[in-house]
Formats: sequence, structure tokens, C-alpha cells
Amino acid sequence: MGNITKRLAVLGSTGSIGQQTLDVIRALPHRFHIVGLAGGKNIDLLTKQIHEFKPRFVYCQDREALARLVNADYEFLTPEDIARHPQVDVVVIATSGRSGLSPTLAAVKAGKNVALANKESVVMAGEIITTEAKLNESQILPIDSEHSAIWQCLNGETQPAAQLILTASGGPFLHYSPAKLSEVTVEQALKHPSWQMGRRVTIDSATLMNKGFEVIEAHWLFDIPFDNIKVLIHPQSIIHSMVEFTDGSIKAQLSYPDMRLPIQYALTYPERLANPRLPRLDWSLINNLTFEHPDLNTFPCLKLAIEAGRKGGTYPAVLCAADEVAVELFLSQRIKFTEIANLIKQALELHQFIPYPTLDEIIAADAWARQKVLQLATGDNPC
Amino acid sequence: MGNITKRLAVLGSTGSIGQQTLDVIRALPHRFHIVGLAGGKNIDLLTKQIHEFKPRFVYCQDREALARLVNADYEFLTPEDIARHPQVDVVVIATSGRSGLSPTLAAVKAGKNVALANKESVVMAGEIITTEAKLNESQILPIDSEHSAIWQCLNGETQPAAQLILTASGGPFLHYSPAKLSEVTVEQALKHPSWQMGRRVTIDSATLMNKGFEVIEAHWLFDIPFDNIKVLIHPQSIIHSMVEFTDGSIKAQLSYPDMRLPIQYALTYPERLANPRLPRLDWSLINNLTFEHPDLNTFPCLKLAIEAGRKGGTYPAVLCAADEVAVELFLSQRIKFTEIANLIKQALELHQFIPYPTLDEIIAADAWARQKVLQLATGDNPC
Repeated sequence: MGNITKRLAVLGSTGSIGQQTLDVIRALPHRFHIVGLAGGKNIDLLTKQIHEFKPRFVYCQDREALARLVNADYEFLTPEDIARHPQVDVVVIATSGRSGLSPTLAAVKAGKNVALANKESVVMAGEIITTEAKLNESQILPIDSEHSAIWQCLNGETQPAAQLILTASGGPFLHYSPAKLSEVTVEQALKHPSWQMGRRVTIDSATLMNKGFEVIEAHWLFDIPFDNIKVLIHPQSIIHSMVEFTDGSIKAQLSYPDMRLPIQYALTYPERLANPRLPRLDWSLINNLTFEHPDLNTFPCLKLAIEAGRKGGTYPAVLCAADEVAVELFLSQRIKFTEIANLIKQALELHQFIPYPTLDEIIAADAWARQKVLQLATGDNPC
Repeated sequence: MGNITKRLAVLGSTGSIGQQTLDVIRALPHRFHIVGLAGGKNIDLLTKQIHEFKPRFVYCQDREALARLVNADYEFLTPEDIARHPQVDVVVIATSGRSGLSPTLAAVKAGKNVALANKESVVMAGEIITTEAKLNESQILPIDSEHSAIWQCLNGETQPAAQLILTASGGPFLHYSPAKLSEVTVEQALKHPSWQMGRRVTIDSATLMNKGFEVIEAHWLFDIPFDNIKVLIHPQSIIHSMVEFTDGSIKAQLSYPDMRLPIQYALTYPERLANPRLPRLDWSLINNLTFEHPDLNTFPCLKLAIEAGRKGGTYPAVLCAADEVAVELFLSQRIKFTEIANLIKQALELHQFIPYPTLDEIIAADAWARQKVLQLATGDNPC
């Protein structure tokens, strides 16, 4: 093809986004070379990935177990060291939760291009990450389908957006009453109507917290005020987001809900490549796209997130950490679905706000919020 | 603003697109200076426009009548001489029908940028116009809402489109049976559900011939095979067209059906400017966008147009001229609505095809088709 092969590190390769990233790379083998893989606890899958892609750098939580399973030649490095390694061109941050923050910062500081699926890192430390990215000429390539859609729509435009319109499926509980919502089960909450995703993000989609995170992420990635970011419920998940320009013209990006498209776009940008594994829209089936405003009273997480984003400082880190713990509590059936928002709200109210935090202060706020939500949930309050 | 004022000539200033062009210019007075205006028969309106915009060059069909009405200082020139004048930067071709062809060619040959609303010129002589535009580094800036949408969606992309999806409202007779269609009146046909347009293009929208012209226009303007252009009925006329890329991603452009937006985009490109006169989409009202495939049996004009476009040569000129006369006959209540397609079909069948015509041969094919349709309609056939 006459094109340079990009050297990729995939951090979080055994998760949902990580696996889909490797699927994209399988379809475009001449364009990418996997030089680093980092997984979490699923050592069996990581072992298979190492045998298939033969990366030079590897990380997982249990180094000894990995060594027993893998005979291949590799160097064991931390995710941060993989992210900043000179032999890596693009770092895919496919981990979920706060564990993405540190390698994202390492990659950005090393001037790497970062294909970013981990929204928590930008929610927690958006100002630090985007400032470091500018300083070090690191480009952040969004993988979230909404941000990829916005990025695609902004491509070629000479002026900033007047408004970003983030679409949301509305999740499995769209149009539920607050009473009905308080009785939903974990099983119901894990059945997302349009997207196949990890457990945490599926619950975050059901509460609309995920959309709130995306609003904060959009604020930082596209440098746009919160007043100019709108959320619109679009249950079919075909339009992934839109951009309204100063002349009133709107551009939208459409496709089936399949993360492999935004992953591939982030990796091939500014090019687009044909990939027979990516489905094309069938207009015999797509005959009706609907839109409605979100119900912020029934789904208070979206409102909490936008408020935390507006206030800035340590609030988004508290929001994010409190949500991670509350979702865990719901998944382990220790709290009701509607308690997730209540716990986050309480944590935000109790938090000692720092307006321009350092990274350490952000991490401390995160730790505080985790402990606080656990205390609030168990009724055990030693403070 | 620190920006250069563009010097515009508006040919067809008294028609629907011409008037809307002047409305855009009224809203952005510092950006544009009208140096030329050409109108048809509506001398009263042209007189008002001349008094308001004080152009240096003027044309209308009745020179003496204009001289009696206008005291202002102006130079009387033909549309072609206005189009190629050194003091003109951008020529807006806002005339309808074949009268746009000659000034479009004059402008393109003079290397002017041409904001083109006249689709007939590209349908009739697409190869000649686009070849001349390339030779003379003239940029064709589409004003048709569909082509503007495609152009906006292609902006910034490094690769050609995989597929263009032209949307069509379906017109006032969507879902009519052939029997019901044969009985429709001129009054019904002139009531377009979403667009306010001139009489001919309104009838062409009702027969879907307008969409057929747009397919041919898209083929030439975006250099894309007919196989990769699709038409999709979208009655709400909010998505003005879409582009599908090689990776399966689709971009769409949305706005209310208001021609002032594509007119302004063509004039300000690559910039976008705020214009309080342009309406913004209200998502409380836009809650349902639907799509369906067109019915080519009930609306044969679309099929005739795509076939004529594929065959090329003089066929599109015959298509266009035959349609212009057939629509006139329908508007003067001399033929039924369904006869429009029959007459065009007969003219295409009887035509002596020239595969690579000169401009003179195109004009001759046009003249032949006009006469032939009149003969066919009146049953008077002296040949």
C-alpha cells in the first residue's frame, strides 16, 4: 500500500474495547504492528493475544502466572512504560475506570498519539491531560462513538462548533417512572438495547451517567463550553452525535452501533480504510430515527455530571469515583438502581472542593470519594 | 472583520433563488458587494434590486423598459459578459432552465468561482462544464441543498466517497397509486410539502425528475459513478443528503429546508458565518425522521433520468429539454401529470444519440427535444 505501518500498544487488550481493537487490526494487518499489550486479570485471553500478535512489551497483573503460560519472548513493562516507549507510535487506552489515567498521562507527556476509549481519565483530569497534550504535541484521537462522530463532523471545518449534540440511546429504562426504576434488577440493567459493552459502562448507560461523562469529555476534547453541549435521546443509536455550526447547519455521523468503526477511524485517521468486517447501514431496515429530550428528573445522574463538570476542579473526579463504587455496589446487589444517583449526590455535597487541583489532589479526591460512598452505602461513618 | 469583500454577480436575481441570495447578502453586508444583477421579465423587482444594491452591471430582457424605470448609473451587459467580467469574483447562477448554460460556461471559462443553483446546465453539459472548470481553475460551489449537503460532508475527507445518498422529500404525491396520480391537478402539484420553490422545480419534485437531475448533477460535480449514487425518500426534508465512506461511516447534513443556508455556505466557503435570519433546528419539533426507497414504477421520471445520465452524450440534454416543455404543457393544463413522463420517454426513444457531443450538438439536441415533445403532445407530427 506504500503506507507506513503504525506501531501500536493496546492497554486493556482483554476488555471489550481491547478485543475489538485487535479485531480491527486483524482486518488491516499491513497497517498496524502490535508492539505492546497490557491486560488485567484475564490471563488466558492475554496469553492467546500474545501468541497471536507477538508483542515486544507485555503487562498483566499477575506476572508469575503469565510467565508460566507464555513461552514467547517478551519484555515485562508497566502500562506507563509501555505507553511512553520510543518504539510505540500510538497508544490505545482501552482500560475502563481510573486505571486509564496514569498511562494516558504517560503517553501524552511522551508526545504519543493516544487513541482514547477511557473516558474516566479525561473526566477526572481533563485540564491536565489536554494541557499536557498541547505542550507535548500529542494528539488525542477519541474512540468513544459520540466523540468520534463529533470529530468526524468537525473534520475540515475552519471554525469551532456552535453546539455539540451528543446522542444517547436512553438505555434499557427509557420512559420508566421513578417508582418503576427503583425496582429494576441487575440483569435488566445489563441488557442494553443497542450496544454491547463492558458491565460498568452498561450500567452507566442505564443511569445516563455515561452520557454525563461524555459531556465532560466533549468539553475538554473539543474545548467547548458546557452551555454549548446538548444531549438528545435517540433510541435507535444510528446517529452517534452531531455538530451544529455557526450558520445553523448541522452535520451528523451515522452507522450501526459497532465500536470497531470509531476504533478504526482513530487508528487510520486522517485516512479511511475499507474493512469488510464493518457493517454498512441497510436503509430497508433503518426507516425511522427518533429524538427526544432527556428526562433529568428521572435520570438525575446526567444532571449531576453536567453540574460537576461545570464546577470543575476536583468535582468530576469525585463524580467518577463515586459512580464507579456505586455501580459496583449495585452490580453486587447491595444497593438499588436509584441509590446510585443518591450516593453520588451525597458524595458531591460532602466533598471539600479544590478548584485547580494537582494530579495528586485529583487522586486524593478520587480515593476520598470511593471510601465515602462505601461508608454512605453501609451506613458506617467513622469520619 | 479583516476579510476581503467578495464581488458578486447574481444572474437570475428576480427568481426564487436570486431573491434568497440577495436576502443572504442583506444579512452579511460587509462581506459581499453586488457588482452585477441580471433579471428576466420582472422589471419592477429588478428595478427595486438595482436601487437597493447599486450594481455596476445590469441585464434584463427588455432594455428600454429598464432604462425608463432606472435612473441609476449602470452598464448594460449580457449575462455572459457580466459572468466573465474582471470585476466579478463569484458568479451566482440562479436562473432556471437552459438559460443558465451559456453564462455558466462563460464564468467557468473565465476562471470565476461559480455558485451554481442551475442544475440544468450541469445536466445538459456536465462533461464540458466540469472539464472547463478544471482547465481554468474555476471552482463550482453547489447551491442545490442536496449537493451542498454532500459538499459539506466531504469537506476535510482525504478520500473519495464510497456512496452518495441523495434524499428526496417524495413530493406531494408520495404513496399515490398510478391511477390516482393520473388525476392530480396543477394546483395540487404546486403544493410542495416542504420546500418553497419556483413552479418548474416544484413540478419536477412532484414527478421525482428533479431528483433524477440531481443524480446526474452529483455524478459530474463529485466525479462519482452512477452505481454509487442512491436516492432515499425522506419526507421531512431535514437530512439534505449523506455521504457514505469506504469504512462504512456515513455523514449527513441537517437543517430546515431553507435555501438561504446552502446559498450562504457557497458564498462564504470555507468559512461559516452567523446569520440571525437562518433558522436553527428545534429538536422539540424534529422528533421523527423517516426513510424509504423510491417507487420507480409509479415515478418513472427518476428512472428515465438515471438511465439518460448513465448513457450520457446528448441524452441528458434531451431529458432536460423534454421535461421543461412537458412541465410547461402540464402547467398550462394541456396534458395530464402522468403524461410528463410518457412524453419524455418517447423523446428519449426517438432521439438520435451522439455519445461525445460538442456544445452546439447539445444545444441542437435540446432544440430537437423541445419541438418533438410539442409535436408528440399535440399529435401533430410533420417529420
